[in-house]
Amino acid sequence: MTITRRDVLGLLMALAAPRPTGAAPGPRVDGARLRAKLEGLSVFGRPVGGSFADGVTRIGYSEADRAARTYTIDLMRRAGLQVRIDPAGNILGRRSGADSSLPPVVLGSHIDSVPAGGNFDGDLGSMAAIEVVEALQERGVVTRRPLEVVVWANEEGVAYGNGLCGSRAAAGQLEAAELDQVWEGVRKSDAIRSIGGDPDRIDEARRAPGSFRAYLELHIEQGGVLDKAGVPIGVVEGIVAIDRYEAIIRGFANHAGTTPMPERRDALVAAAQLVLAVRDVVTAEPGRQVGTVGQLSVHPGAPNVIPGEVRHTIELRDLSGEKIRRLAEAIRARARTIAEATGTEITITPTSHHDEALATPEIQQRIEAAAARLGLPTLRLPSGAGHDAQMMARLGPMGMIFVPSVRGISHSPRELSRWEDCARGADVLLLTVLELAQ
Amino acid sequence: MTITRRDVLGLLMALAAPRPTGAAPGPRVDGARLRAKLEGLSVFGRPVGGSFADGVTRIGYSEADRAARTYTIDLMRRAGLQVRIDPAGNILGRRSGADSSLPPVVLGSHIDSVPAGGNFDGDLGSMAAIEVVEALQERGVVTRRPLEVVVWANEEGVAYGNGLCGSRAAAGQLEAAELDQVWEGVRKSDAIRSIGGDPDRIDEARRAPGSFRAYLELHIEQGGVLDKAGVPIGVVEGIVAIDRYEAIIRGFANHAGTTPMPERRDALVAAAQLVLAVRDVVTAEPGRQVGTVGQLSVHPGAPNVIPGEVRHTIELRDLSGEKIRRLAEAIRARARTIAEATGTEITITPTSHHDEALATPEIQQRIEAAAARLGLPTLRLPSGAGHDAQMMARLGPMGMIFVPSVRGISHSPRELSRWEDCARGADVLLLTVLELAQ
Repeated sequence: MTITRRDVLGLLMALAAPRPTGAAPGPRVDGARLRAKLEGLSVFGRPVGGSFADGVTRIGYSEADRAARTYTIDLMRRAGLQVRIDPAGNILGRRSGADSSLPPVVLGSHIDSVPAGGNFDGDLGSMAAIEVVEALQERGVVTRRPLEVVVWANEEGVAYGNGLCGSRAAAGQLEAAELDQVWEGVRKSDAIRSIGGDPDRIDEARRAPGSFRAYLELHIEQGGVLDKAGVPIGVVEGIVAIDRYEAIIRGFANHAGTTPMPERRDALVAAAQLVLAVRDVVTAEPGRQVGTVGQLSVHPGAPNVIPGEVRHTIELRDLSGEKIRRLAEAIRARARTIAEATGTEITITPTSHHDEALATPEIQQRIEAAAARLGLPTLRLPSGAGHDAQMMARLGPMGMIFVPSVRGISHSPRELSRWEDCARGADVLLLTVLELAQ
Repeated sequence: MTITRRDVLGLLMALAAPRPTGAAPGPRVDGARLRAKLEGLSVFGRPVGGSFADGVTRIGYSEADRAARTYTIDLMRRAGLQVRIDPAGNILGRRSGADSSLPPVVLGSHIDSVPAGGNFDGDLGSMAAIEVVEALQERGVVTRRPLEVVVWANEEGVAYGNGLCGSRAAAGQLEAAELDQVWEGVRKSDAIRSIGGDPDRIDEARRAPGSFRAYLELHIEQGGVLDKAGVPIGVVEGIVAIDRYEAIIRGFANHAGTTPMPERRDALVAAAQLVLAVRDVVTAEPGRQVGTVGQLSVHPGAPNVIPGEVRHTIELRDLSGEKIRRLAEAIRARARTIAEATGTEITITPTSHHDEALATPEIQQRIEAAAARLGLPTLRLPSGAGHDAQMMARLGPMGMIFVPSVRGISHSPRELSRWEDCARGADVLLLTVLELAQ
């Protein structure tokens, strides 16, 4: 085992951080018990003969997902929660408050995964929400407001190609036509039934705006910002806007042996310039915006034929939708210059658009205050990935807590967050819940 | 119909070109009859309900190919040729000379096509060879040496993925193991049998070095050099060397939303730079060398995942094999710089190598002399595409005559050469054959 800068910083922090004066010892999560919950969950969808380090494949509605849901419901009941499944298949667990007429504080995440995914994405926020309730139960803490733990159905959207299924139903953003989609031979409505949902009453999964005090989600960062900065707690400013485009570059396919270089209208030579233009435009100004060309195909695609057509995606993300629209315009301008210079035609067409979902400033401040009471440094950052929280932000106050992903790896069996960071994140969640539930 | 610069030049040439003094009228091909031969051939493999302009799909050994061979054999017999099929399935037609003990002059091409190919690639050289013999027959011209028309089997190599099949057998370059290859459920040996070959005696298709006076092939240029220059006859200097490489660029696949731009090791951003480096290196020095990236694939290939690996081909061609090896070294040097700058690993591995095949200087001069006798300007140029002639060059003197491809288009139904250019090329072939057969 090697000692890293992070370890040393953590040790110094533990030794040197002044215990905030006046901070009551109060309830804390049990880090070992949280770990046990996550390790227990990790067997559902684990490769045959594998270990924790081999990650999981736990596609929404699959046998592994259903088994993991049974395990999770059992944990929720043992934490004293009253569990029900809503018509979209979301698992809801309620804990009464001193005044149960008040809107609850909702906390949770999801437990489905991508194929060959890790043990933390969604799992941490779901198990931590249960652990928070269990810690309160253990101490006999009764909050003024009720609490509600939610485990959202099919967040990843591997099945049926469209994620945030459960939370979109809650936000009234699930199209009725989606229920007729078929994936691997199964209709979506039947998939929802298989996890205890009732697609005929899907509208009843909707939540009214203002029907909860706040929604809180603990999640791994999935990027490397916190890990690199050595900061244990990220306070999410919001979930980025995502715009996607398809670029089509049309040149002229011709024989690679008989067409002199100056006569060519090579679609791939033009596309290569556009790929670099996306990077250049996105990095030309300060900020956390990102731009990616992740998918690219070449036609006809033979070693001895000059590419006649290239199609590729362009994806832009930033907390400001206005900024990425401006970047897209700059990319279009570069495309016109490239088309002119290469004798090609370039079209760039929008294919999807998702607005940003900003976290509520009050909730961000409460998360920071909770972290401060625990002596934990924080960093504000955007979430570059989508989360169920973005749907809940349409209905009421929303906040997200991030913990570091080692080396920023996610959607991979190598996805990893340190157990102590998981416990710290869960403690910040606990203290924030306590504040909001008063 | 629009009048082009080419048309005007052609008209002026016809009106103004001085009839070379002392040029005997001598035998000439019948341009209309040559056209009829080509139009007759074009029905084999033509799309259902299509016309000449829709081109052909006439894959080697296919039903369309076998029907076209029957048609061709019939034309050869009507031209007075004694026809046989050699063990590789090549069609050979012999015309006796005054001294039939002398090695013959061989002339020909192929009649198989690529999928959705044109009516001139191979077809012109095959039909023109027959027309040359028919023109001599008509005039009662007896050459001193015998003539041999050859129609090579499976030049394109669409079937079994490796071209020049018949001519490679003639040059002893067909591997025995190739006969066991299976394509669309048929063994190559059975495919050869289906066109009248005898794979068990494939070695007997070999020709001895020095066993012919010269091999001559008329072909369309397949590039746009002659068309652009307005020159009707190309004298081929040789068939280019072709080196192919596979470039593998390894970065790190990660979430496109959560990985900041400076943290990325984007394999596609590196590959884009390498694609442009290939073009830059190849065009940095004068000459007719070409470099092409025609095939490229991105992994994992999702809009929201930073590309972790890109693989692409690099193909380099030039009449000088030494020059393209030098260019490949320069590309490797650029790849090292790109890998360094992008945090990727780049490997470039040779996948195939074909030596250049130079045309015999004496034959080039004879072709130029024949064109001069007809008042036709010529241009020396390399063949960027491979031809059966490159196999025959291993065994004896070789020359190729090119005629212009309109707009340089080939391997397409839009492949086109003007009928008058086809006839001119066939006349140059005829006069060159007459010279060499004396």
